[in-house]
Amino acid sequence: MVVSISALATLADPLASGVSGNDTVYLWIAIAAGVLALAAALLFARSVLASDQGTPEMQHIASAIREGAQAFMGRQYKTIAIMAVVLAGVLYAGYLAYPLTAPLASKVVISFLVGAACSGFSGYTGMFVSIRANLRTAAAARTSLSKALTLALHGGAVTGLIVVGLALLGISLLFLLFGGTGTHPEAVPYQLVGFGFGASLVALFAQLGGGIYTKAADVGADLVGKVEAGIPEDDPRNPAVIADLVGDNVGDCAGRGADLFESSAAESVGAMILGAALYPVFGIKGILFPLIVHAINIVSSIIGVSSVRSKETDDPMHSLNRGFYITSFLALVGFAAGVHFLLQDRWWLLGAGVVGIITSFLFVSITEYYTETRYRPVQSIAEACKTGPATNIITGLAVGMETPALPVVVISGALLLSYYFGVRGLEDATGIADYAKGIYGTAIATMGMLSSAAYILAMDTFGPITDNAGGIAEMSNQPHEVRDRTDRLDAAGNTTKALTKGYAIGSASLAAFLLFSAYLETIHNIVKHRVEAAGFTLPLDWTFSNVNLASIPVFVGALLGAMLTYLFSSMAISAVGRAAEKVIEDVRAQFKENPGIMNGTSRPDYARCVNIVTGAALKEMVLPGALAVLMPVVIGVLFRHLSTRFHLKSSTDLPIAFGNIVNLSGAEAVAAFLMVGTISGILLAMLMNNGGGAWDNAKKLIETGHFGGKGSDAHKAAVVGDTVGDPFKDTAGPSLHVLIKLLATVTLVLAPLFV
Amino acid sequence: MVVSISALATLADPLASGVSGNDTVYLWIAIAAGVLALAAALLFARSVLASDQGTPEMQHIASAIREGAQAFMGRQYKTIAIMAVVLAGVLYAGYLAYPLTAPLASKVVISFLVGAACSGFSGYTGMFVSIRANLRTAAAARTSLSKALTLALHGGAVTGLIVVGLALLGISLLFLLFGGTGTHPEAVPYQLVGFGFGASLVALFAQLGGGIYTKAADVGADLVGKVEAGIPEDDPRNPAVIADLVGDNVGDCAGRGADLFESSAAESVGAMILGAALYPVFGIKGILFPLIVHAINIVSSIIGVSSVRSKETDDPMHSLNRGFYITSFLALVGFAAGVHFLLQDRWWLLGAGVVGIITSFLFVSITEYYTETRYRPVQSIAEACKTGPATNIITGLAVGMETPALPVVVISGALLLSYYFGVRGLEDATGIADYAKGIYGTAIATMGMLSSAAYILAMDTFGPITDNAGGIAEMSNQPHEVRDRTDRLDAAGNTTKALTKGYAIGSASLAAFLLFSAYLETIHNIVKHRVEAAGFTLPLDWTFSNVNLASIPVFVGALLGAMLTYLFSSMAISAVGRAAEKVIEDVRAQFKENPGIMNGTSRPDYARCVNIVTGAALKEMVLPGALAVLMPVVIGVLFRHLSTRFHLKSSTDLPIAFGNIVNLSGAEAVAAFLMVGTISGILLAMLMNNGGGAWDNAKKLIETGHFGGKGSDAHKAAVVGDTVGDPFKDTAGPSLHVLIKLLATVTLVLAPLFV
Repeated sequence: MVVSISALATLADPLASGVSGNDTVYLWIAIAAGVLALAAALLFARSVLASDQGTPEMQHIASAIREGAQAFMGRQYKTIAIMAVVLAGVLYAGYLAYPLTAPLASKVVISFLVGAACSGFSGYTGMFVSIRANLRTAAAARTSLSKALTLALHGGAVTGLIVVGLALLGISLLFLLFGGTGTHPEAVPYQLVGFGFGASLVALFAQLGGGIYTKAADVGADLVGKVEAGIPEDDPRNPAVIADLVGDNVGDCAGRGADLFESSAAESVGAMILGAALYPVFGIKGILFPLIVHAINIVSSIIGVSSVRSKETDDPMHSLNRGFYITSFLALVGFAAGVHFLLQDRWWLLGAGVVGIITSFLFVSITEYYTETRYRPVQSIAEACKTGPATNIITGLAVGMETPALPVVVISGALLLSYYFGVRGLEDATGIADYAKGIYGTAIATMGMLSSAAYILAMDTFGPITDNAGGIAEMSNQPHEVRDRTDRLDAAGNTTKALTKGYAIGSASLAAFLLFSAYLETIHNIVKHRVEAAGFTLPLDWTFSNVNLASIPVFVGALLGAMLTYLFSSMAISAVGRAAEKVIEDVRAQFKENPGIMNGTSRPDYARCVNIVTGAALKEMVLPGALAVLMPVVIGVLFRHLSTRFHLKSSTDLPIAFGNIVNLSGAEAVAAFLMVGTISGILLAMLMNNGGGAWDNAKKLIETGHFGGKGSDAHKAAVVGDTVGDPFKDTAGPSLHVLIKLLATVTLVLAPLFV
Repeated sequence: MVVSISALATLADPLASGVSGNDTVYLWIAIAAGVLALAAALLFARSVLASDQGTPEMQHIASAIREGAQAFMGRQYKTIAIMAVVLAGVLYAGYLAYPLTAPLASKVVISFLVGAACSGFSGYTGMFVSIRANLRTAAAARTSLSKALTLALHGGAVTGLIVVGLALLGISLLFLLFGGTGTHPEAVPYQLVGFGFGASLVALFAQLGGGIYTKAADVGADLVGKVEAGIPEDDPRNPAVIADLVGDNVGDCAGRGADLFESSAAESVGAMILGAALYPVFGIKGILFPLIVHAINIVSSIIGVSSVRSKETDDPMHSLNRGFYITSFLALVGFAAGVHFLLQDRWWLLGAGVVGIITSFLFVSITEYYTETRYRPVQSIAEACKTGPATNIITGLAVGMETPALPVVVISGALLLSYYFGVRGLEDATGIADYAKGIYGTAIATMGMLSSAAYILAMDTFGPITDNAGGIAEMSNQPHEVRDRTDRLDAAGNTTKALTKGYAIGSASLAAFLLFSAYLETIHNIVKHRVEAAGFTLPLDWTFSNVNLASIPVFVGALLGAMLTYLFSSMAISAVGRAAEKVIEDVRAQFKENPGIMNGTSRPDYARCVNIVTGAALKEMVLPGALAVLMPVVIGVLFRHLSTRFHLKSSTDLPIAFGNIVNLSGAEAVAAFLMVGTISGILLAMLMNNGGGAWDNAKKLIETGHFGGKGSDAHKAAVVGDTVGDPFKDTAGPSLHVLIKLLATVTLVLAPLFV
């Protein structure tokens, strides 16, 4: 029996607990760091906005992109806001329905709405800056690579800092508001779960909508533009070209921003819940540690970003990596300080943090190995293009299916090690189960992985900014050396985008276990609460920390969880197909209606195309999103009721005395649904991200002259692979990251309804 | 806590137990049915072999196919035999290593070798007949469709009857040999697990090797023949054409034969183990019931096969389906009789059997929906071909990812219902846990699904026979009406092949839970045995029937299980690619060396091509096969040792008193590995089988004149999809079915080494 975390915690030495005044200082430090992040973001934004805006021609194009992006974001967030409000209502009603959850209703709904609002705001403001930074970067590229590079990175840093800053600020303030400085801070984290849920709800729709938008526009523009009309990429004659450039922003930038916002939010809350279980050991400090890690993250990222310089001849990637190393090093130092001040110098726990940092490095390197042209996988795909598209696809899929192997081994190692370090680090803590100690170790590893999130996010947003800058330079026919600079930045941007995907999925995998444990811990507390409210006392050794794969509801839940990830991916991919169809029709129509477009005498109607893809993407994002939100609810509630009907005794049902108050089949089925859905989702996402990235770069490899070079049959075959990979790596894959975390947070929030 | 099956069984009324003489009669009935199956197979074989062999030209081609197939099978089975013997040695040593398992060593190894031998023999003899039936079918097609149809089906029936007959005979005789008629028949089923393992080991390599062979030859022949040289399919000038026809036999026929042999074997043994747990209720009858079901299966399939007739104008599929309905109806009647005579008229249990039969129908219909040209999925794929190969692939993958949804819902429903029926059916059985009753219900559902296996298998083998007949007719330039007949049979054969894949994966999914429960039950008995041997008594309420997803070893095991299915598929697919490369090189070489081939003056060297692909396929099958066998062993043993080192307390470790004798982390990690690996494998297999089938038929739909018809760009795009789908549906997908069952049997056999 895994002994329950809090069951044993209650045995522990009471002297350790309680909040001594000078401990709350760490909460204020966290809040200060949040404010600092926003201030720094503001400064970066101003310096970006203040710089040269280039030629009127450039500005004209940039404004078209800006308008398109803002139009989409506006309509998208309106749709999301409506859904969020509806859900808030349902949530409120659901909580009110049960006497025991009723008192929590308002707190959960408030934190849900705050989380949703913060997530939306950070996505929007991040966008606001990057759709302006793109123009400035292009303009700067006319004079110097270094200037353009720093501009793009500072533009990205705005997103990074706002995202992490708002997550930190939101959680800290809610913690304060809900009485975190009172006598029972250990009860507060459970009330914050709504924040993570709000964040991931917005994230899911932002990523789905953005992902569908960007690929529908991209595929549409390519198929008619390149293939039918035979005009090059980013050619101003292509009516879908602006929509394509808009897509880079709303997909990569806003989408990944929301993704990492909710990672920071959900994983912090999860870690705080596990910290609460160690309350007897660390007091409030154990709960606040995750927030302090993000404070460290902010400071070291600001320094890291500011430190990036580049020479005209440098490979931009080198400068960006240098900044990343500086950030990681500072984060490590800060982490050590955190362990010293908050975790009683338990250096084994620093070890767990280091495991997390190393894991993120390994994930990034594995992603590099599978997606970069200089390694075997991409080369074998390019090679396969010689025998046509079929062999290209087969090889690409084989590579994609191979990609999860190493990361899974890394994650397994990371979990085992950080668990071990957790146990060692807390060896002398009396009355705490090894399990609780180990799990806290894995939580700290996750924190370690997130300790450079802001910088990673800056690198990620660097991608769409430089991509856009390249497009603007291309469309405004800049001289060769300017385009050469933007091309080099763009290439670096493609790499950073691929790497951050590896980072995102890595943090998702590591966090999965953390959030799962938080869910079990929450269920345990609910049951305790229920049983005591009914006038019984829960046997100390009873626990809901086992989910029995051998019971039917659990197996069925697991089956359905894995199935959801496939169905969801299928929906996301076919959504892109349908939306792209609409783009294709419009582009064809525009060519037909207005022959002046092709011979360059008149401009195509960019806005019309943007509107069409906007409408299509928003329509398409609803169904898969709804599926993801509703399925866990249905399963939990269904099995809660089925179980008695079908004689499905739950493996953890309580002694008969409690039989009539607690029925755990629903909670168990959901746990398995969550866990196996997460595992399946992680693997599918890796397959799609890395497979897609590999196809993309195999095409690039051929375009640089290998295996026949541009225009050869091999190249045609490679284009097919690239097109197949697009919805993989930019729609379904990233949406799966968010889906995984959404499942974790939705189950956390709805847990009371499953019991 | 799920109360352990046998723990509670021991509480039950002793009067029920013990073997009364007239109960063993059912064992003799089973043995008689096995003999009957072999006799019937012999008669079918003779009637097939006795019929007309057509023109010398036809015979010439047929003999080339025959030689190729026999050469491959010979070399393949030599390789497999070596591996089997080595493994038998390892197994023997492993069992001898522990004093408590040592007594079982010889029994396990014997049943392992018998299982392997039976599996091999049934695969080989089935092949032996079908590579002769193909010629006779082609010959018969010159005079009548009906004659050709029945010949092909009777040829297939030989495989079906030998497979099921040998499985039944092997298990029954071992049961007898190991003292099944003695005083403790309930102990015997545990000693039969080796039989299932031997069967699945051979099945895995047969399916992998055959699957790689058939697609390497197919893809190779198409890419050079159709694409480069521009000669039609099955053109005698193509040096790979014979290898291609050989592939249909060694892949579909031998491969699927081995697959269903081990389904029948593994699932019968699993059901017998669960039957043993109900020994107090049914006595030996509960153990023998699965064998009686197969006896019923044999009789009703013989009648069903013999009943198939067809008119010249009929759609062959109608005649085949009629036979299937007859078989299913007879099976149902027999099942009812079985419930009457063996299961004390507990009609709820008949309900569970009906659930199984209905499940198999639903799986077949869902497969039809996703793979047949008259439904939405295939049509959408064909439609997508109009915009080129990329959209074709994207749509196909989206469809493939959609396919698991419905089957998963069906399986979930089937599990819940049959579990419920099991509980209801045994309501009055005192002292048996609901869990044990429910699980037996799911076991009976699985039996119900397998109750027409022999007929299904006959339909399946019908496929390669008619496919070959078509090839022979084509290559020997038969007149139009003959080819028209073979084409219609071939079309029916493609359908039956697709349907049986759906059937195979369905039975695998339903059986997964059964085998998993058998594994848990086995572990429980081992622990009981160990503890008692050490002079303790196991607390009655202790059980190893929960596998705690919240413990690190379990989570890591689950992660690795899912990962294996991806890595295995990746290996299988790239193996096809590499082997196909070799074929392509040889075909090109032959065209170059001997220009006479193309202008038809001289014959290509078919044998050379056959040898090359044979060598390649055998080489390629070893690595993925070894991975599948070794990984569970490594995980089980590794975690058994890691657990103490890493403070990984297992959730089911025994009270401290036993702590030093039993450590269950290994067994738990393997359980999760098995379970989640199975879930992931089922979904991946569905994606690949149905996706591949859909691409194939989308091409056929276009070839019948839709969306531009043959030779159009849409058709070229469709060919790409078809080629991508080939290794999906004929190599990786079917191999995954076998992998799933291999994991189940290998863990059953090695269970003692994990504790």
